[in-house]
Amino acid sequence: MWLQRELTLNPQRRGFHLITDEVIAQLPELRSLNVGLLHVFIQHTSASLTINENADPTVRGDMERHFNVLAPEGAPYFQHTYEGEDDMPAHIKSTLIGVSQSIPITNGRVNLGLWQGLYLCEHRDHASARTIIATLQGE
Amino acid sequence: MWLQRELTLNPQRRGFHLITDEVIAQLPELRSLNVGLLHVFIQHTSASLTINENADPTVRGDMERHFNVLAPEGAPYFQHTYEGEDDMPAHIKSTLIGVSQSIPITNGRVNLGLWQGLYLCEHRDHASARTIIATLQGE
Amino acid sequence: MWLQRELTLNPQRRGFHLITDEVIAQLPELRSLNVGLLHVFIQHTSASLTINENADPTVRGDMERHFNVLAPEGAPYFQHTYEGEDDMPAHIKSTLIGVSQSIPITNGRVNLGLWQGLYLCEHRDHASARTIIATLQGE
Repeated sequence: MWLQRELTLNPQRRGFHLITDEVIAQLPELRSLNVGLLHVFIQHTSASLTINENADPTVRGDMERHFNVLAPEGAPYFQHTYEGEDDMPAHIKSTLIGVSQSIPITNGRVNLGLWQGLYLCEHRDHASARTIIATLQGE
Repeated sequence: MWLQRELTLNPQRRGFHLITDEVIAQLPELRSLNVGLLHVFIQHTSASLTINENADPTVRGDMERHFNVLAPEGAPYFQHTYEGEDDMPAHIKSTLIGVSQSIPITNGRVNLGLWQGLYLCEHRDHASARTIIATLQGE
Repeated sequence: MWLQRELTLNPQRRGFHLITDEVIAQLPELRSLNVGLLHVFIQHTSASLTINENADPTVRGDMERHFNVLAPEGAPYFQHTYEGEDDMPAHIKSTLIGVSQSIPITNGRVNLGLWQGLYLCEHRDHASARTIIATLQGE
């Protein structure tokens, strides 16, 4: 079985945001799969998707603060500067973190670890809604 | 054909460890696939999976030393500190490296390059066994 | 439907290079898929694949400059030095960026965002041709 759906995520402030429930709620068909994979792909170059700790919001805050150190604004060698100070760091973070995740499906559920959740990583200061292509396959 | 299996990896010391053989040995069914994909997913937020050089152990040592620079302990802006100095850097490394890998299967074998191997990246000082969900599909 | 093909990419200078068209041209079968996934996997440990901005070449230049800061040559703790100053940073960049990407297929086309393209990230100073295993599946 293959199913593909375009999902729209509400605009979020710059930072790391848990979206596990928001994504799964839009894919009720995954309950019918005994075994499979869910692929989520964000169609942008200044946001990204990761899987990390789903409980303590300070983890998401520390992520934002640390990725701002790894990809700081205003590096003297940046030439791509006309879209704002936050733009080139956003592209770098997107490549460091990645634009897709594949998650196993087991017995009708995403088989994440107990402490894992899916994050939208929003790297722009003033972001619009973001589009994800979700592709579900399995049997 | 779909096959999914939960694999338990022995506890490892903090660092980067080759696990290609340990994982493949637990998936004898992949020998029957002419073409396919193996997806390996680690169900943790303080460990990760990557593919890199499979021969010289100094590569794995240098990886550990360099990721300790990229995500150092004791950053003054860390708020998530109650699980130990190594915990927040472990979460960051997990997102930098990623929790899953997909590997092509060709003629009954994982089609890695000559110098490639699968690594478990253990980011905690005192880790327990780690769980991987392996999902095999193909024909 | 499954299809797998080994693609050879022309040697490139060190840096980030758009290869979307070069890859798709070698996979005409994807036009026949209504829904699916394209998995591209580079069989090397000193090059990588990412998806990022497809328009302004300064983005690719800034990427190269910034990853040279994130994984600099000549770190005093590097022990794996006998293959050249650029070798260990290349391994680190490969793990930071990743060796594979999965891209949704929709109505016979790769369903990238408007501004997204596939990059070959070449991390060696004097690289040879690079091999990618492309795996296409869908219906």
